[in-house]
Amino acid sequence: MTPSALDALIEALRCLPGVGPKSAQRMAYHLLQRDQKGAARLAASLGHALDTLRHCAKCNTFTEQEICQRCANPQRDHRLLCVVEMPSDLAMLEQTHIFNGLYYVLMGRMSPLDGIGPRELKLDKLVERASDGVVEEVILATNFTNEGEVTAHTVGELLRARGLKVSRIARGVPVGGELEHTDIGTIAQALLERRAVADET
Amino acid sequence: MTPSALDALIEALRCLPGVGPKSAQRMAYHLLQRDQKGAARLAASLGHALDTLRHCAKCNTFTEQEICQRCANPQRDHRLLCVVEMPSDLAMLEQTHIFNGLYYVLMGRMSPLDGIGPRELKLDKLVERASDGVVEEVILATNFTNEGEVTAHTVGELLRARGLKVSRIARGVPVGGELEHTDIGTIAQALLERRAVADET
Repeated sequence: MTPSALDALIEALRCLPGVGPKSAQRMAYHLLQRDQKGAARLAASLGHALDTLRHCAKCNTFTEQEICQRCANPQRDHRLLCVVEMPSDLAMLEQTHIFNGLYYVLMGRMSPLDGIGPRELKLDKLVERASDGVVEEVILATNFTNEGEVTAHTVGELLRARGLKVSRIARGVPVGGELEHTDIGTIAQALLERRAVADET
Repeated sequence: MTPSALDALIEALRCLPGVGPKSAQRMAYHLLQRDQKGAARLAASLGHALDTLRHCAKCNTFTEQEICQRCANPQRDHRLLCVVEMPSDLAMLEQTHIFNGLYYVLMGRMSPLDGIGPRELKLDKLVERASDGVVEEVILATNFTNEGEVTAHTVGELLRARGLKVSRIARGVPVGGELEHTDIGTIAQALLERRAVADET
């Protein structure tokens, strides 16, 4: 007895990640009952985003141009290429203000169990990008999760086979972290990957 | 440096209940990267729902007609009116298959802290509906939360002032429930609202 337009909306909301039948129902009621303006704005934004957004030909992130502003910026160091999983990771790195190179956004991570391998991630596109003759070092900044590590390993192998210098961002005790409250795995890695302390001069 | 169409989509997704900035970003990436078909379907469903759905003139639930199929059904007992908070509550009651009366859906609950009082809930519309001369008993089936109880109390007062018979669904130990695992408040209510046991004949 549910009207078909309501059923269709509830079903359509389930395409959102983490939204099950109950949440979808709650969202539909909320939009229709309390926020029709928000619902109309959401519909319009979805349409607009689908129409205008594409992937940057160089760094693969979302952009409205052929090549995004960052990749087109001659002020940035085109010899450094930092590989991240998602645009949100890129945003975090940019917030540090200490990296002036370029990025490559994988738009995902290797996940053999979900059938996401090198082909699905289009790693050949990254290899081609990194082999432009300008890039000198590729910095792997995928997450330190299992999937992120597998991704870093695979990407590293591919790029080193092309003779490129490859590095990985450091893993260790977080800044401000106390050993007592740090997990054992991180402490173990911090020990293994210890750095020689240079003389202060 | 985020493209404006992406920013707008992330912002628009935040109108969904329980969706903060991080979830909205994750949803936007997911839709654009992994499920463009789902995104297009969601945009279309939102538009269609906003265009076609309205509130039933009798029971106030979502419908595509002036009066919903349930309220228009002469097979149902028009003397019984069951008041619920949301269409999902109506659906739960219908699943019991033991109620053949009609419903009134408040589309919310009293919540003084959020500024939702009798006027915002349009309780006058319910009073008018219940005073049609056909309804003989109004059954209050709002939730047994604080807000649901306040709503039931307010609605009950309004309707009894019109001379209508008002009842409340029973509160007590759930079917299959063990006292050991039932909260004290529920057990207390089950004691206070105990029913006389009739002789079996």
